[in-house]
Amino acid sequence: MNTRITKLRTLMVNEKIDGVFVSCIPNITYLTNFSGFSTEDRDAFLLITKSNQYIFTHGIYKEVVKKQLSGFELIEMTRENPTGKAIAQLIKNHSINKLSYEATNLSVWEYERLFKSISKKHLTQVNLVEKLRTIKDTDEIYAIKASCLLGDKTYSYVLTRLRSGMTEKDLVFEIEYFIKKNSGDISFPSIVAFGENAAFIHHQSGDRKLKKNDCVLLDFGVRLNNYCSDMSRTFFYGKANKEKTKAYLTVLESQKKAIMYIEEKLEKKEDVKGNIADKISRDYITQEGFVAFPYSLGHGIGLEVHESPRLSPSYDEILENGMVFSIEPGIYLQDKMGVRIEDLFAIENNKLIPLTLSPKTLTEL
Amino acid sequence: MNTRITKLRTLMVNEKIDGVFVSCIPNITYLTNFSGFSTEDRDAFLLITKSNQYIFTHGIYKEVVKKQLSGFELIEMTRENPTGKAIAQLIKNHSINKLSYEATNLSVWEYERLFKSISKKHLTQVNLVEKLRTIKDTDEIYAIKASCLLGDKTYSYVLTRLRSGMTEKDLVFEIEYFIKKNSGDISFPSIVAFGENAAFIHHQSGDRKLKKNDCVLLDFGVRLNNYCSDMSRTFFYGKANKEKTKAYLTVLESQKKAIMYIEEKLEKKEDVKGNIADKISRDYITQEGFVAFPYSLGHGIGLEVHESPRLSPSYDEILENGMVFSIEPGIYLQDKMGVRIEDLFAIENNKLIPLTLSPKTLTEL
Repeated sequence: MNTRITKLRTLMVNEKIDGVFVSCIPNITYLTNFSGFSTEDRDAFLLITKSNQYIFTHGIYKEVVKKQLSGFELIEMTRENPTGKAIAQLIKNHSINKLSYEATNLSVWEYERLFKSISKKHLTQVNLVEKLRTIKDTDEIYAIKASCLLGDKTYSYVLTRLRSGMTEKDLVFEIEYFIKKNSGDISFPSIVAFGENAAFIHHQSGDRKLKKNDCVLLDFGVRLNNYCSDMSRTFFYGKANKEKTKAYLTVLESQKKAIMYIEEKLEKKEDVKGNIADKISRDYITQEGFVAFPYSLGHGIGLEVHESPRLSPSYDEILENGMVFSIEPGIYLQDKMGVRIEDLFAIENNKLIPLTLSPKTLTEL
Repeated sequence: MNTRITKLRTLMVNEKIDGVFVSCIPNITYLTNFSGFSTEDRDAFLLITKSNQYIFTHGIYKEVVKKQLSGFELIEMTRENPTGKAIAQLIKNHSINKLSYEATNLSVWEYERLFKSISKKHLTQVNLVEKLRTIKDTDEIYAIKASCLLGDKTYSYVLTRLRSGMTEKDLVFEIEYFIKKNSGDISFPSIVAFGENAAFIHHQSGDRKLKKNDCVLLDFGVRLNNYCSDMSRTFFYGKANKEKTKAYLTVLESQKKAIMYIEEKLEKKEDVKGNIADKISRDYITQEGFVAFPYSLGHGIGLEVHESPRLSPSYDEILENGMVFSIEPGIYLQDKMGVRIEDLFAIENNKLIPLTLSPKTLTEL
């Protein structure tokens, strides 16, 4: 028996939901353990009722469903049998009063077609699968650790590949080359920013060449067995002047303060809140005379690079055992440089466990 | 003056639309010539009225907008100034009666937030930018040609890298290594399928090792200067038996028949229809005793890998000058092998111009 679906059904009872319609591919992977559906096309949907589980997919997946998704009843999506009609039929057959769907995942166009034959009063936007995914089991944390380990190795490798005059794109190539040579995949397009480019947090790596005394900001992630890592490091290719040194050490300390808050609260078995961690980190940077990072301190990670929970001003839920998230403060000095230090952590047995282990003392190469 | 926006305004008049709300990143790139917004986050929206053009984005893009999007008025998206409120204000200020939005791009969640302050009777789903993008200008076709050329070079390179015992993933690595070494990017995750794996059109490349007499199916694309290529080739690592040879030659001929139909119609200045090209190609395969490909014969390509037009049973619009599309019939023999031959073509001056030029005579290596 699929324990994740059992857990989902428990949540369904609590939330008075009789059917869960799943469209987001990572959610389908999570519930089925099958990761072969394309994330580009709409290859599949799930519908989980209290007693049954259905998979809607194209005929070409028939054999796959038989072999790898044996717990699911197949409903073939064809032009003659539109999914909307099949959903309406199942709602009737199972007397579903409340069906949840994923409002952040379905487009308006899809929503209209999938649910055109049913009364909108049956629909609710609660995302129970996302809720389940927020708390990782041991295997999931193990998988994220494996991705982080390859990330750490990649970072060590990349440090040996630096040379004056190489472009940001060259360094992106080195990162991705190493990851792929080691049977991994990238979890998002790697960011490499040299010097003043590091000040722009959404920088796209380009032809800027590496020069002496540049800061180098790297932000990249690995995907292994579907689970993602994510890390950022900043170092100096040459010497860091006084201002850059201060910015670096301030970011490092601001990360440390957030970590210490979480560790202390966990030890005392008191509530740990994402928004307080964010505030502690942010306030320290402001207090040191810098402008704080224009984003949230951290994000959950797992089958997706960004998922629940968030460590952000607007997230006051409690950080719990089984959660895996980033802590990534930064300082960005326009036209000069940027610093970001990002590590992943898991909470296991009321302890904050660092998953990325690359050194982060100020490095001048 | 931005000629694309001028063209858009002409379409707006024809369609009686007073405002176009743009959310899809390739559409934003198309209208602004700026490709720096992340496709992962919602970094920007455009709103084009008959007289003004607005860009909604985050504060971190302020400098970028000033330098590279000077024709647009900036509206900063902040927690205090939600985009929905700003949209409602603009609709009032410009007396917009019909505002179009992109229903296949906006999620239900986004739609609800962006348009919650306006009456739904003002909204329409016509996608005028997609319509414009269907007809490429000379620069766009040139850019796609450049991507196709690197694709052809990649194919030649890959043929020199084959060895017994290498895995599909190893060959994916070689494809992507070559593309990136030549300053390109991949336009979608490359597909490499050996032997029986080629029978499954959504195969994810894995650890299957290359053996003598395997068929090898490659499907990959390049992205250069934002424009995509896409090509598929199938060849044999050793000898093709009689059945495989027949399957290969049938696909090749079925592609040729679709090409000839389009060429002849263009020459006679008669209407060329995507659905007829699809039928001609498909019928030939069936007539030769095989099951035809379970997808459309072709798709438009440009800033996105899949865009308008389609060469499919359900697309009866006319193929015109300025369109760029794939022609990619295939035969898939379960547990045995698969063949797909895919080339890109442009229609220019009433001629069908092949953009991918790699050889496709039956190849036994």
